[in-house]
Amino acid sequence: MPIAQFAPRTDEHSIESGTALSPKFDADGLIVAIAVDADKGDVLMVAHMNAEALARTIETRQGWFWSRSRKKLWRKGEESGNTLAVADIRVDCDQDAVLLKVRIAGDGVACHTGYRSCFYRSVPAGRAPTPDLALVFDRSMPRK
Amino acid sequence: MPIAQFAPRTDEHSIESGTALSPKFDADGLIVAIAVDADKGDVLMVAHMNAEALARTIETRQGWFWSRSRKKLWRKGEESGNTLAVADIRVDCDQDAVLLKVRIAGDGVACHTGYRSCFYRSVPAGRAPTPDLALVFDRSMPRK
Repeated sequence: MPIAQFAPRTDEHSIESGTALSPKFDADGLIVAIAVDADKGDVLMVAHMNAEALARTIETRQGWFWSRSRKKLWRKGEESGNTLAVADIRVDCDQDAVLLKVRIAGDGVACHTGYRSCFYRSVPAGRAPTPDLALVFDRSMPRK
Repeated sequence: MPIAQFAPRTDEHSIESGTALSPKFDADGLIVAIAVDADKGDVLMVAHMNAEALARTIETRQGWFWSRSRKKLWRKGEESGNTLAVADIRVDCDQDAVLLKVRIAGDGVACHTGYRSCFYRSVPAGRAPTPDLALVFDRSMPRK
């Protein structure tokens, strides 16, 4: 793979209104990436990319990420079969977040827990949180 | 406002399969939060929350965040009028990301640039990125 090559970050106006890709990686060299289903639109997972993961995703149209726990580059689904075919890649206004519109291969499950999406629990709202607050599982979410 | 009170983070199984809300804040005390439209499902913005912003969002059902640039708590829309009424709050498997399903008040614009969503530019894919890669504006996105 070639070394990742992005445009330098210049002034705010250029970054927000221009056409140069100038991602803002954080102090650890990472940028947050959100994967949503390209057809249904639901949010599947949130992960991180380093420059190489972003470059590989752009080049190969497959979802590549950086695992902070394993400290390694990984292609989503390389073990589970649930690879991500990337239909669209977007950056946000200040270019510190990436949005992937994807189609999941395999059994259509994005989360390692077996749920379709990592966001399978809701937080009850309307009062201040306390340590005994109980999350509510989304029983309608597909699960393998 | 009361001091934020969440359950302590214990073992991985409890965090992923249990009902306790045990958010994982990073070294700066922040957690990433994604706002999607509750009805249309499109991703509107990505921001960060500290513990107080998360607690306020849960209690008030309005989108509160932590501004890293201004180093202050802010209620989204407090100046623009584009407040976020939160219909659903979710956490992901390892509880290091928050998903808000929201309805935007005012003129329905989430991004400070005037676009409905912060993700108004696509990255051309299929070849390795170079500094002269040109982002493509989504001309179909509503803008004020």
